[in-house]
Amino acid sequence: MKWLTGAQYWSSKISSQAIEDQLENSIDQSVLDIIRQVKEAGDRAVNSLTNQFDGIKLDDFTVTKDEFAEARDRVSPAFVPALEQAKTNITRFHQRQLQQSWIDSSIPGIVLGQQVTPLERVGIYIPGGKAAYPSTVLMNVIPAKIAGVESIVITTPPQPNGKVNPHILVAAEKAGADTVYKIGGAQAIAALAYGTETINKVQKITGPGNAYVARAKKWVFGEVAIDMIAGPSEICIVADDTAPADFVAADLLSQAEHDEAATPICIVWNNKQATAIQEEMERQTALLEREEIITKSVQQNGKFILVEDLYEAMDIANDIAPEHLQLMIENPIEKLGYIKNAGAIFLGNYSPEALGDYMAGPNHTLPTNGTAAFSSPLGVYDFMKKSSVIQYDKQSLLNTVDAITELATTEKLTAHAQAIQIRKEDDSNAKA
Amino acid sequence: MKWLTGAQYWSSKISSQAIEDQLENSIDQSVLDIIRQVKEAGDRAVNSLTNQFDGIKLDDFTVTKDEFAEARDRVSPAFVPALEQAKTNITRFHQRQLQQSWIDSSIPGIVLGQQVTPLERVGIYIPGGKAAYPSTVLMNVIPAKIAGVESIVITTPPQPNGKVNPHILVAAEKAGADTVYKIGGAQAIAALAYGTETINKVQKITGPGNAYVARAKKWVFGEVAIDMIAGPSEICIVADDTAPADFVAADLLSQAEHDEAATPICIVWNNKQATAIQEEMERQTALLEREEIITKSVQQNGKFILVEDLYEAMDIANDIAPEHLQLMIENPIEKLGYIKNAGAIFLGNYSPEALGDYMAGPNHTLPTNGTAAFSSPLGVYDFMKKSSVIQYDKQSLLNTVDAITELATTEKLTAHAQAIQIRKEDDSNAKA
Repeated sequence: MKWLTGAQYWSSKISSQAIEDQLENSIDQSVLDIIRQVKEAGDRAVNSLTNQFDGIKLDDFTVTKDEFAEARDRVSPAFVPALEQAKTNITRFHQRQLQQSWIDSSIPGIVLGQQVTPLERVGIYIPGGKAAYPSTVLMNVIPAKIAGVESIVITTPPQPNGKVNPHILVAAEKAGADTVYKIGGAQAIAALAYGTETINKVQKITGPGNAYVARAKKWVFGEVAIDMIAGPSEICIVADDTAPADFVAADLLSQAEHDEAATPICIVWNNKQATAIQEEMERQTALLEREEIITKSVQQNGKFILVEDLYEAMDIANDIAPEHLQLMIENPIEKLGYIKNAGAIFLGNYSPEALGDYMAGPNHTLPTNGTAAFSSPLGVYDFMKKSSVIQYDKQSLLNTVDAITELATTEKLTAHAQAIQIRKEDDSNAKA
Repeated sequence: MKWLTGAQYWSSKISSQAIEDQLENSIDQSVLDIIRQVKEAGDRAVNSLTNQFDGIKLDDFTVTKDEFAEARDRVSPAFVPALEQAKTNITRFHQRQLQQSWIDSSIPGIVLGQQVTPLERVGIYIPGGKAAYPSTVLMNVIPAKIAGVESIVITTPPQPNGKVNPHILVAAEKAGADTVYKIGGAQAIAALAYGTETINKVQKITGPGNAYVARAKKWVFGEVAIDMIAGPSEICIVADDTAPADFVAADLLSQAEHDEAATPICIVWNNKQATAIQEEMERQTALLEREEIITKSVQQNGKFILVEDLYEAMDIANDIAPEHLQLMIENPIEKLGYIKNAGAIFLGNYSPEALGDYMAGPNHTLPTNGTAAFSSPLGVYDFMKKSSVIQYDKQSLLNTVDAITELATTEKLTAHAQAIQIRKEDDSNAKA
């Protein structure tokens, strides 16, 4: 962990903001080439790209009923109840996010409203690769399901044997996904965005992925909606003297194990507490399976920030806008109002990030890389859209004629003014 | 207007979906070059680009108090009350969109919630060019203001004399914008996204613009949030025999006058009604100031779709997912539930699009080009973001240990499991 003071944090801000230059991305050319191939040649391109990148020749991308059954047999008996417990909690939390349509008829003659309806077709990307994340399947499919999305499809890369990780399939089935396709990488994103002979074009793509998937999502954005561009993820723990150093250390390390670009940050105002946490991190790291990744992540990105007090700590946390913020302080809920920017806020010593990643209920798909300052966790609202509703009766419309005519002519949109005037003239003629 | 049947509409769909290839856009190179210049050289680059594109050398981009005062003197006396009436209605509607934070403590020992907070800094792009749109200023600034955004800045291109259109300035002041900068084009988007010596980096950019502005927004997306990528806009009117042909015609033409790429579509199931509307369009077009634009838009993009009945009409309307949908039919509100995809839905003969553009209250920034199938009108929700809140007490966390451990080890994230286990061990040690 790098140690710096609050003053050093603030003064280092400008240089530390030098993020990857989005405009020079060297993988864009291959991503664009993949998208172009899939757009032009559909399934045939997906086939050949799957052969090229996943090393497997597939006759059919669609996971069959038999493959789902086989997956159920392959997972451990303890896996299913754990998954169901998570599903129950995730469902419960996300149901509270369902928004209602509303109508306002409080002004006689005028009805205004907002109609909220689900998207019809959604595609979810689930990474395969070294580890498979069934929890991510739940976190994406359940909100879409609650929103009322009719068609929820998953794409995920095939393993070298042409199968999909069984935990992903069991989670997909439990969560209620309609179809799983064995397609990975930028070719999956292109297939979802433009459609192929097998795959229906979707309206929105969600789910995490590697750099190719992320860039492909950025490129198809506009053609379809996307959830967010996920960057390196981070945890920021604000710890006072009441936080057990071993808990803080374990939570920092749990974030660090995600990958070498993950960032564990700890903000404290007691040097001794920082030292105790650092020692605990060293002790625990040696015992962990993913020691190598953790060590790199901690050395490269880890930071202790030593500040004056809790209030400076919260200022810095807001400035970082972390994906995960743990307030391991006394009476943390009293301080909730000070927190402006964070994907998820974990309060107290018994609410570690890992609880939120799997079980608590809120979504674990969170804005990363400081984007929590302007983005939200994935939610039911991501799978619904709104339409405004306007109904004026004749007299209400006639009351607006002068004001609309004035504004429309100011904007030189005289046909707009005419659309209002013609109704006034019609009324005058009727009365004459 | 092109005439086609419902069957022809459905069968022509595939070819008509061939949209502009986003990947080959020829203006990208110049947009990227502009962004790079502004990112590297800040104000100096903005200065030189403004000189180059707007033909004016400015010492200071910031609109002064004197310029605001001058603008107030220059607008017509009828403009201000019309603007105020619009502001009142827009404010009233958008206040209903304010979302509340919530907390759920119904399970003893567990507190879950969703905290909703405003963005801090927002930039709004307002086009200059041939016409200036003060209504767009209201439609962007008011929702941001209601959300509670602290800093709302506007960028808009300077006129050749170095001034800003006075109606834009008066609207900016009335709506409550904090600062107006005289910067246009891709350089304005770059300045808002990356910041310069004068301009604070914002968190989100909203507002319409030409192709350069739209591409620049796409490129900076991820660095900042953006509202949407606006495409050619459209109106779709579903008209039964009760709809006055002259009203329908006037509304189609009001959309057509926006620009030559605008699309007026009318769906009917009575040939005579279509003919009457067509005749009215011809009669009225000849009387309109923007006859030339309207004629081109109508000839190039206008469509009558002759269907079997109202239900096929609504199916096609959902498939088009128009920006504006007018249901000029009997008892239109009874049919609201059939409408799934539309930016704004206008019911009856006295709710023309022009009413919504200026006065009714709902936002006139709507998803275009079919994106209403997955996007919403601009709203207060675009200027707020959510944070999840999680607090478990000790016993509640201990109850989850087995399930989390099972899921985390399945995902090979053993440090996640360890962050939970260490709390269990601590408890066991305390009891021992």
